[in-house]
Order: sequence, then structure tokens, then C-alpha cells
Amino acid sequence: MDDNMKKIPFDINYLLKNFPTPFYVYDERGILNSLKKLQNSFNWCDFKEYFAVKATPTPYILRILGENGAGTDCSSMAELILSEKSGINGEDILFTSNNTPIEEYKKAYDLGAIINFDDTDHIKKFLNKIGKPDIASIRYTPKNAYGTEVIGNPKNSKFGMPYKKVLEGYKIMIDSGIKRVGFHAMLVSNTLSTDIITRNTQIIFEAVKNISEKLNIEFEFIDIGGGFGIPYKPEEKELDINLLSKNIKDLYNYYFNDFKPKLYTENGRYITGPHGYLITKVLHIKSSYKMYVGVDANMANLMRPAIYGAYHHITVLNKSGEYETYDVVGSLCENNDKFAINRKLPKIEEEDILIIHDVGAHGHSMGFNYNGKLKSAEFVYDGEKFKMIRRAETLDDYFSTIIF
Amino acid sequence: MDDNMKKIPFDINYLLKNFPTPFYVYDERGILNSLKKLQNSFNWCDFKEYFAVKATPTPYILRILGENGAGTDCSSMAELILSEKSGINGEDILFTSNNTPIEEYKKAYDLGAIINFDDTDHIKKFLNKIGKPDIASIRYTPKNAYGTEVIGNPKNSKFGMPYKKVLEGYKIMIDSGIKRVGFHAMLVSNTLSTDIITRNTQIIFEAVKNISEKLNIEFEFIDIGGGFGIPYKPEEKELDINLLSKNIKDLYNYYFNDFKPKLYTENGRYITGPHGYLITKVLHIKSSYKMYVGVDANMANLMRPAIYGAYHHITVLNKSGEYETYDVVGSLCENNDKFAINRKLPKIEEEDILIIHDVGAHGHSMGFNYNGKLKSAEFVYDGEKFKMIRRAETLDDYFSTIIF
Repeated sequence: MDDNMKKIPFDINYLLKNFPTPFYVYDERGILNSLKKLQNSFNWCDFKEYFAVKATPTPYILRILGENGAGTDCSSMAELILSEKSGINGEDILFTSNNTPIEEYKKAYDLGAIINFDDTDHIKKFLNKIGKPDIASIRYTPKNAYGTEVIGNPKNSKFGMPYKKVLEGYKIMIDSGIKRVGFHAMLVSNTLSTDIITRNTQIIFEAVKNISEKLNIEFEFIDIGGGFGIPYKPEEKELDINLLSKNIKDLYNYYFNDFKPKLYTENGRYITGPHGYLITKVLHIKSSYKMYVGVDANMANLMRPAIYGAYHHITVLNKSGEYETYDVVGSLCENNDKFAINRKLPKIEEEDILIIHDVGAHGHSMGFNYNGKLKSAEFVYDGEKFKMIRRAETLDDYFSTIIF
Repeated sequence: MDDNMKKIPFDINYLLKNFPTPFYVYDERGILNSLKKLQNSFNWCDFKEYFAVKATPTPYILRILGENGAGTDCSSMAELILSEKSGINGEDILFTSNNTPIEEYKKAYDLGAIINFDDTDHIKKFLNKIGKPDIASIRYTPKNAYGTEVIGNPKNSKFGMPYKKVLEGYKIMIDSGIKRVGFHAMLVSNTLSTDIITRNTQIIFEAVKNISEKLNIEFEFIDIGGGFGIPYKPEEKELDINLLSKNIKDLYNYYFNDFKPKLYTENGRYITGPHGYLITKVLHIKSSYKMYVGVDANMANLMRPAIYGAYHHITVLNKSGEYETYDVVGSLCENNDKFAINRKLPKIEEEDILIIHDVGAHGHSMGFNYNGKLKSAEFVYDGEKFKMIRRAETLDDYFSTIIF
């Protein structure tokens, strides 16, 4: 392992001096670079990335993404309002939800969002109770897909519909007079394989082509979903985005001659994942059956290692080398509240600062308040200075819904 | 399966008419009956139950438990303050934490709580920075325990200490002049086997006996932990609490002749688990590769099925029989947001009310706000009327920490 891997692109002394740990820091330049890399790779078509809000539902980040050409992929009332408050409106919002309450569809409609339907009955309800959306799509779930270890077998997916129902759905949409239609599928999660994404894209393009011919319609866009992975472990290699784009371009040219659909993605992790850092202080070192490093962060700040066994790289500020094997743990009263198990790290002392890497997506946003734990503040570094973009939760926040 | 199983002990029409679903309802009489059952079983000794606050951190419930002879088992600042605000103070609080910040020890000390140490270094720090606690104990983690499938092998536990360190810890405590000492271990979770708890209790008693003889001290109490299970599935049988108590009494009489320690437990689930109900409305029924029942609750209200694959019984209000096989799902944008998979239920229609059972512990308290989802209100039924004891979260709560 290279000690220089996973350096942080700023000096956090200012934050450490002025704010209590734990806290999150995001690298604005890194986030925008990832967005640009994705956009540049797909510049051979009319491309748009709709950022998955759930990954990092923080308006500052949504706003800078929006200013740089991204839209938002929303799936709840809160996310729709967050987008709106971040200055993202209209068809820059894609609303993909399942089992959706009618008032959320209404809000999406009022914002002028692209409506992505999860069921034929939803289309009927929408037309009946709200009206005719200007542009809409349907979520397709094929019988099989590739590389679905993380996201699960499509046949067990609560999302989307099989081919026959999708076809039926588009008929309903066309009959109702909806003129502009798109197509949607989301088949993998966090994959580093261009091959897997390419093969799934082919499944999607094939379905689009078939439905287009059967119903004699031109699709305005195809949303091939998200799930582009990032390397969490030192030995993993980045997704080859240029190769992926080339593969998809070949497929695109093969399938689409009559009409040229726009191409959309809805990545979250790929854009922000590598550019978020959880900064936490060592409170205690314990020798039991193993060596434990106890830090002041816990599952309230980051749940991924506990619930998925996810690997997050950890470095120790101003220390290098590998000297000891530790479990790095939080103080939550659950034995799975561990950020790393049997991890080799430089010899750690109390008050050391640990940096937990690649937490820019599905990190802070997944935290809970179990055991009365509180979520941390979030900062962004814009290349010149740090800005607080979310304050830390307080005990008063935690108590606020209780009727004493 | 008996259709009459898992009835709800109140009429929820009043709540359904006046409050939006989803919401939680707790049965006050059921909770107090469970507490009394536990207390009565152990009435042969000086027994006290310290309720694990994390299970149901709601002051109304803590208060009624406190009024009926229970204390609280706390492990964070928030839980200490919740106890205090619920009228529970002094040695009615047991503070068991790991990797503990000094300010949390200080708060526990100021409240007069029993301090349960997780490491020898914590004892030294406490004595050095805070002072001498009136009464304290040490958390023991033996090399092996029985029935640790849920809680994990003790050798991988971040909690407590091996025998040698425990011994060293008591020496430090005695040398410092702490006169009143207890003993603590927590070795299983959610077990229905009297045998498993008995055998683990023997491990604990054996250690107490040995340390008592080695150091010539009398232990004032032994906390044998929690983990008494409840039947989640229709075919499971209740823990035989009277048999368990008899077994433990035999052990107690065998091991303790010179001194008679008080006996403490720190159950959460056993007390409140069966007496909480999550009430949710069917929003949508979808036929895809399977039949999906979409409800208005999701992982924000109850995470156990999604993260543990936990079984929770579901009944349909005013319907019986088994007619269809469904996945019961929430609308969170994660495919594991499912309350039940392949569950046989009466034929369900939109607007039906589902009751998710046995959610009185580790239910509401574990919820998160991922995807912008909001936690629900909590009510209690006191035998005569319903009282709201926690209001539902609002979007303003969700937005409250954001710096726009």
C-alpha cells in the first residue's frame, strides 16, 4: 500500500482549531472535476447527469452541480424541495419514485420535473388526479441483468416493471396525449466494470428500440441509471469512463438511426463519493482480545461499514507506515459500530486525528440517531476557504419531537 | 397460523380518524405487565431491571417504568439527559458505555449514576479527571459465551475486558478507595432459550466468585445484562421466565453464601418489544415479477427487517385469512426497504391499514432520514385513552441543520 494514497487536498488545521470533531469536509474542486470528467466522456451525445440527491442531500453541493450542468434525481418530497431551494427546477429534475404518494407526484408536476413512472397504475392515477405531464418516462426492470450482486436480482426488485407492463404503460401515456417520452432503467450499483455497465446498457437500448418500433414513437431520452462505481480499496482501479463511453457510443450508433435520444445518467457516488472526508478524533485505545481504537465518530456519522461491511480507507493525520492492527470503533452501543476491522495503521495515540475516506456519498445522509447519537457538521473547501454547509445536530434537535 | 394471534389491545379508529399514518402506538398496560412479570419472577432476590433506553428512548415510557420500580441503562449523553428529564436519577441509572468521552462520565457522575467501566484506562481517567464514584462496576467479556450468534463472538467484542484486565480493574478501584462495587456482563441478544441465559449467568457468577475470593471483596450487585428474547414469529414460544429465574436462583444459591449480591438486568426488548405497533396505510399495489404492497411507512419508521432481515408479524385491520403472497415495501429508494418478503396475507386493497407487530423496541429509535424520509409520531394507550408522546418529524425538522 502506498502511504501517499488518499491524501487530503487541503489543510484541515483551521477546522480542527475551530470546530469540534467529528465533521465532514467535501472538496468542491474534486466534485466538479468528477462531474466534468463524466460530462466530457459523453460529449458525443446530448448528455445530462442527474445527480442522485440521496447520496449527498446538501444544497450547497446540489447548487454547484446545478451551476455546472447537472440536474437532480429526486425520489421524495424532501428531495424535491431541496432541489427547488438549490435553484434546480423544471426538467433539470427527474422524479423517480416507487410506491409514491400522490402529493409527491403533484409537487414534482408543479416543479415541471420529468416524471418517471414505476407502475402502470401510477400513470393512470397521475393522469386522473393531477393531469398530463409534459414529459415522462417509465422505469423498466428486465428479467435479468448483469452484475447485480449489490443491487439484487431484478426479479426481486420492488422497482420498475417487466417489459409487457412497460409496453402497456407507454400505450397509456401515448393514448393520453403525452407527446414527449423517455425511458429509464437502473440495474447496477457501485460497479467498476465497464463491461457490466455496457451489457446492461445494451439491454436498455434493445428495449427502447423494440418499444419504439412497436408503438411507433421516438424516445426523447434514455436514462441508463447510475451505479458507476468508485475505488474504495487501494488495490481497486478507477472505472475507465472513456472506455465505457466509447462502448456505449458504439451501441448507441448501432441501435439508433431514426432518432437520437438524449442520454441521461443518475450517478451519486461517482460524483461526490471520493471527495468527502470524515474527520474524527481518537478518544481511547483499548487492549482487549484485540486492539481497539475508539473514535468520536460512530454510525450516526457513517453507517456503511456497519450495515454493508463496506471498506473505507483510513489514514492518520501526520503519520505514515504500518505498525499495528486495530479495530477502529465508535461508541455506539452496538457491536457492529466499527469503521474498520483488523486494519493496519500507523501506531495510534489518543488525540490522533483519523481521516475516513470516500464518504462523499451515502455517508452523512444515511446516519441515524440510535442511542441518542448526533449527526456531525459538514464543511466544503472551495479551493480557497472552508464553509460550513450544515451545522452539527444538538441535543435540542434530538429532543425536539418529544412531548415531555 | 392462528388468525387471532397478534391482535391489538385497543381500537385505533380514533387515531386513524385524527392523525396521518404511519404512526406508532404503545400499549402501556402491556409494557407494565412485562415489567411486573420480570420483577415477580426474580422476587427471591434483591432484583432491579434497568431498562435499556436505546430500545425506546421516549420519556413517557421511561417515566412509567421508573414509577414501577425500573431504572435506566444509559450509554450516551442524550440517554442520561432523557433519564433525568423522565425523573430517573442517582443509582436508578446505570451508565454503561464504551470508548466514552470524559464529559459523558462527568454527567453520569453528577447524576449519581452507577458507573460501569469498559476499560482499566477509563477507571484511571475517571479517578484522575472526575473523582471517586460512590459505586461502580466493570464490564466483563469472557473468552467464550453461549448463544452469541446475534451479538457476536466475545473475542470480537469491542465491549468490556478479559478476566485478567477485569481483575486489574477491580484492584485499581479498591486501591482508590471505591467501597461499593458491582459486576457487569452482557453476553447475548434476543434469545428465547433459558438454557443459554442460564449457562452465561453461570460464567458470570463464576467470575464474580473468583474475583471476590482473590481480592477479598463483596460485590453489591451483579448485572447479568439483557438479551431476554421475545417471540417474533407465530411459531415461537415465549421465554419461560419462571424457569429461567429458578435456574438462576439455583446458581445463585450455589455460588453465593458469604454475601448476597443484588441482581440486575438491563432488558429493553423484553419489556417494550411486544407492546409497540406500527400502523401504516397501503398506498399502492403493484404486480411486477411479484406482488408488491406499498405502504406509507419505510425504513425511517422501522429498519429491523431491512438491516437484519428481521421478521415482524403483519396483520391487516379488519381482514383475516390468507389469500395472497406479497412483498410489503416502503417507498425508500433502496431495494431492501421491505417489511416482509413472500408474506401470506389476506387479499389487500389500497387504503387498507396494516399493523406491523412487536416494534416496541429498536423500532422507531433506529430509524434514519435517508432519502429525506421522516420519522413518525408515537402514541401510547393507557387503558382509557391515547396520548401523543412524540410528534411526527416535519420537513422543517429535516431542513433545520442545513445552511442554505
